[in-house]
Amino acid sequence: MDTRVVGILGGGQLGRMLVEAANRLNVRTAVLDAAENPASQVSGSANLRSHVTGSFKDAALIGDLAKVSDVLTVEIEHVDTKGLDAVLSQGIVKHIHPTPQTIRIIQDKFRQKQHLIKHGVPVADSREVTSVKDIENAVAEFGNGFPVMLKSKTLAYDGRGNRVIKSASDISQAISDLGGGPAKNGPELYVEKWIPFQRELAVMVARSVSGNIVSYPCVETVQKNNVCHVVVAPAQIDGTVQQRARKVAEEAVRSFEGAGIFGVEMFLLDDGSILLNELAPRPHNSGHYTIEACYTSQYEQHIRAILDIRRSIMINLLGSGSATSDLESSVLRPCRIAHETTGASVHLYGKAACQKGRKMGHITLTADSMPQAAALASKILGDDLDAETKRAFAPAPVVGIIMGSDSDLPTLKAAAQVLEDFGVPFELTVVSAHRTPKRMVEYAERLVLVDLKSLLRLLVVLPIFRNGCGSHLASCYWSSSCFEALDGVDSLYSICQMPRGVPVATVAINNSTNAALLAVRMLGAAVPDYLDKIEAFAKRSEGEVLGKVEKLDKVGWKDYEVKH
Amino acid sequence: MDTRVVGILGGGQLGRMLVEAANRLNVRTAVLDAAENPASQVSGSANLRSHVTGSFKDAALIGDLAKVSDVLTVEIEHVDTKGLDAVLSQGIVKHIHPTPQTIRIIQDKFRQKQHLIKHGVPVADSREVTSVKDIENAVAEFGNGFPVMLKSKTLAYDGRGNRVIKSASDISQAISDLGGGPAKNGPELYVEKWIPFQRELAVMVARSVSGNIVSYPCVETVQKNNVCHVVVAPAQIDGTVQQRARKVAEEAVRSFEGAGIFGVEMFLLDDGSILLNELAPRPHNSGHYTIEACYTSQYEQHIRAILDIRRSIMINLLGSGSATSDLESSVLRPCRIAHETTGASVHLYGKAACQKGRKMGHITLTADSMPQAAALASKILGDDLDAETKRAFAPAPVVGIIMGSDSDLPTLKAAAQVLEDFGVPFELTVVSAHRTPKRMVEYAERLVLVDLKSLLRLLVVLPIFRNGCGSHLASCYWSSSCFEALDGVDSLYSICQMPRGVPVATVAINNSTNAALLAVRMLGAAVPDYLDKIEAFAKRSEGEVLGKVEKLDKVGWKDYEVKH
Repeated sequence: MDTRVVGILGGGQLGRMLVEAANRLNVRTAVLDAAENPASQVSGSANLRSHVTGSFKDAALIGDLAKVSDVLTVEIEHVDTKGLDAVLSQGIVKHIHPTPQTIRIIQDKFRQKQHLIKHGVPVADSREVTSVKDIENAVAEFGNGFPVMLKSKTLAYDGRGNRVIKSASDISQAISDLGGGPAKNGPELYVEKWIPFQRELAVMVARSVSGNIVSYPCVETVQKNNVCHVVVAPAQIDGTVQQRARKVAEEAVRSFEGAGIFGVEMFLLDDGSILLNELAPRPHNSGHYTIEACYTSQYEQHIRAILDIRRSIMINLLGSGSATSDLESSVLRPCRIAHETTGASVHLYGKAACQKGRKMGHITLTADSMPQAAALASKILGDDLDAETKRAFAPAPVVGIIMGSDSDLPTLKAAAQVLEDFGVPFELTVVSAHRTPKRMVEYAERLVLVDLKSLLRLLVVLPIFRNGCGSHLASCYWSSSCFEALDGVDSLYSICQMPRGVPVATVAINNSTNAALLAVRMLGAAVPDYLDKIEAFAKRSEGEVLGKVEKLDKVGWKDYEVKH
Repeated sequence: MDTRVVGILGGGQLGRMLVEAANRLNVRTAVLDAAENPASQVSGSANLRSHVTGSFKDAALIGDLAKVSDVLTVEIEHVDTKGLDAVLSQGIVKHIHPTPQTIRIIQDKFRQKQHLIKHGVPVADSREVTSVKDIENAVAEFGNGFPVMLKSKTLAYDGRGNRVIKSASDISQAISDLGGGPAKNGPELYVEKWIPFQRELAVMVARSVSGNIVSYPCVETVQKNNVCHVVVAPAQIDGTVQQRARKVAEEAVRSFEGAGIFGVEMFLLDDGSILLNELAPRPHNSGHYTIEACYTSQYEQHIRAILDIRRSIMINLLGSGSATSDLESSVLRPCRIAHETTGASVHLYGKAACQKGRKMGHITLTADSMPQAAALASKILGDDLDAETKRAFAPAPVVGIIMGSDSDLPTLKAAAQVLEDFGVPFELTVVSAHRTPKRMVEYAERLVLVDLKSLLRLLVVLPIFRNGCGSHLASCYWSSSCFEALDGVDSLYSICQMPRGVPVATVAINNSTNAALLAVRMLGAAVPDYLDKIEAFAKRSEGEVLGKVEKLDKVGWKDYEVKH
């Protein structure tokens, strides 16, 4: 449906996964690389017939790719950037993401580091070097002695182009190994202070055409023979460290031009500080996990970022064809909203014509809870959301409030109100251990049989009883998660003395508000949205108390009136 | 890497998504359908050049597809089954999944129903009809009067080929609308008893070559103008009903031959009973959600089922090339194990040669908790799991046990033991509200800052104090989820009187086992595995008590010795 073609320099696995993401959005692709490369195998080449066979370092071939493309991007940074400059200045393509200038800075790792330092991003200390003497001087300036790291400025990756210098006697050999010495355009090598890191972290960062920045979770990468071996997402480290790493990565990407995804590799030191190691202006090995683990993969994110899909893909299509209004209401509008909605995945099928009733694509919405999924669906379906569909969305209860008698209702209304306020689906009913023992057993069994592996995963029971009869029910319900609001010290004692292996928690006497708040918090383990709401609630509570502090200071304790 | 080609009859959206799944596994595909169809656009046609252009109802073209394929499958059931029989009997392909016979039975919806009745699957009552008289007789036999449903046996879908008969006077028109009357091969129409259903349910079921059956969650489908409009997964109905629907769907699929995915549509009646409506021997509209919401999509499941990938894909490759042993240890073995592992996604890049150090593919493991992910990784990595990697897997704590003084340790060891037994990562430390107030505030802040949106999503705090000092801490920690094990009535009273808005639960006096069990249950909202373990624990507890009942009955109360 989008008529634009994305030209990709490089057809390796990163290119292949970019094409897969583009296919799903029905965005066409053309690939420049050697014949039979992984990416062109899965792109719409049979129809497009526009792949270019050869090297992405060849300016002429970059020109050929540009001729069949509307936007150029890269899956590898070692491309001919002058070729890219040329197609841009000649107006063959209007957009290259990231920009040739960004790629140029990143290609040269020393220049990349100088750029980052200029923008306040923490990196390891390093010096340009051409001779043994240069390196000896640098070691002296670093002040930590050996080892140090000698690196090639360009074409170094997966451990290639690096040498560890363990002592002064290693220096000559290391320079010679890396083919060093003075080059035409200045030194080709640099030496870097040794970083005794604790872990290697990585963060994928996306930058939109307009410069908005979002980042993925912080992961840990484990290298083997200098190649990424395993990625653990999220990194099993303190949340505050994760946050700092994401911030460093975001600041680094903010300093570059052009849209798309960037892979940022960092070192975590023992003192908790973070140094940026290097970044890549493209999808990255450490971001493969986003295909399965995130709402939007790094590949789809890249395609959407470079095409600015949020803004324009659907608007471009509005002017095409005779059935414009049908296409707009049935396909384009929902897709446009979906592209702005976290948790919505758009699948377009690439059908030639939009006939009435023809299945053109679908949108899948995923969320942590049914109320959230239903809210997304309302947003996207709009007027198409009829009564029948709404009924299907009506969420099954995830909290049950049960009481021994309807006379408990006044006490329990507070709990119901909290659940309603927090948008937690619940049911409220009477189950008496003494007067409806059979119903009690059936109720308990139904809870156990509820499909706990499904989206919502947990039915929390919130049994609230009076006058000590609680313990009977509590033990019956023990296979669910129980806690109680009490209105008698006898109940309190009986619940606190439940036998080992039967955990039932007591929240408060005559205070069902707190029991409900705890239920919401428990569900927060599966539905983070509830935790956000709880946090906002806590902030409001704190604000109210601080307001009273202020008032007390202002009016004095003699004139202060307490409100009940 | 798999050299087999899957030939797909039909190149619509279902075929396209089958090709996408095959691409990721680097399984090659050939498509038979009209030119420029959605499926061939994304398949490796540039290299394979083996798509067949034309109709999947043309036996000669089915023969052409068979010549370039190793296995044939369908994305639509309205294919020429005699053409399929022919290529099988002539030995042009060895495998067609599902079998032509299965497709033949399912193509004819009346025959499908007779088949299901024979195998004990509940369906609506129906009769073959050719005349007005036949229909009048059927209505009398059904015994419910009008309306009834008149249906074409074949080529009916998305509401086409169906007519509601509201009264006797509608009958002639309905027969004429559906082009009915006696046909060469017997009646082409059947009439079905009216089903006043409450909801329409659907379940995707996969059948392996050896006949193993697995099903996806039960979903609700909402139709609009007789076409599937919205799918809600899981259906927001009682878990017991979901279970019954899955069982009906599994039994139905068990009765057919051939491997692959089947879509099963059912009616849920007001009395809770389930009737099978119809099934499709292929991926289904109601299963699109599996791409985003399930470990393995219906499309990948279909490709893996028809190729019997669990057993043979990698074994086939063992005999190829000179670097067999390298390929085996570095790529094939991990992939083989991954294909047997829920939560493992295999990505193969389609590279021509397996050179040393070349990135050939990757495997992503997703799990609800880091201990589970680490276990999957150990299984797949085997000897490749070195110390460095193990360290990265070491999970961050999700439960904190804190105590005011180390003298509490004897009481708290029981909680630690429970968490260790259940495989819940935890930390245990001293935080005193009175003696280390600054540390307490820092600890609380760290909890709040932990990235709650990450995989584990929740840090549960399990603060356990003594002698009533709990309330100070409890209020500081209120933004985490707290519950306590107490050893004094003063503590009990102070916790139960926490103000509204500050939910802190009390579990027991001097019983930290129960506090830990409740923590495990809370985490179960995000990690269903913990709920399974809790359930097993409950079963063991029940068994122990029932054992004592038996012993008491046997030895009598006089001789029964109580063990402490």
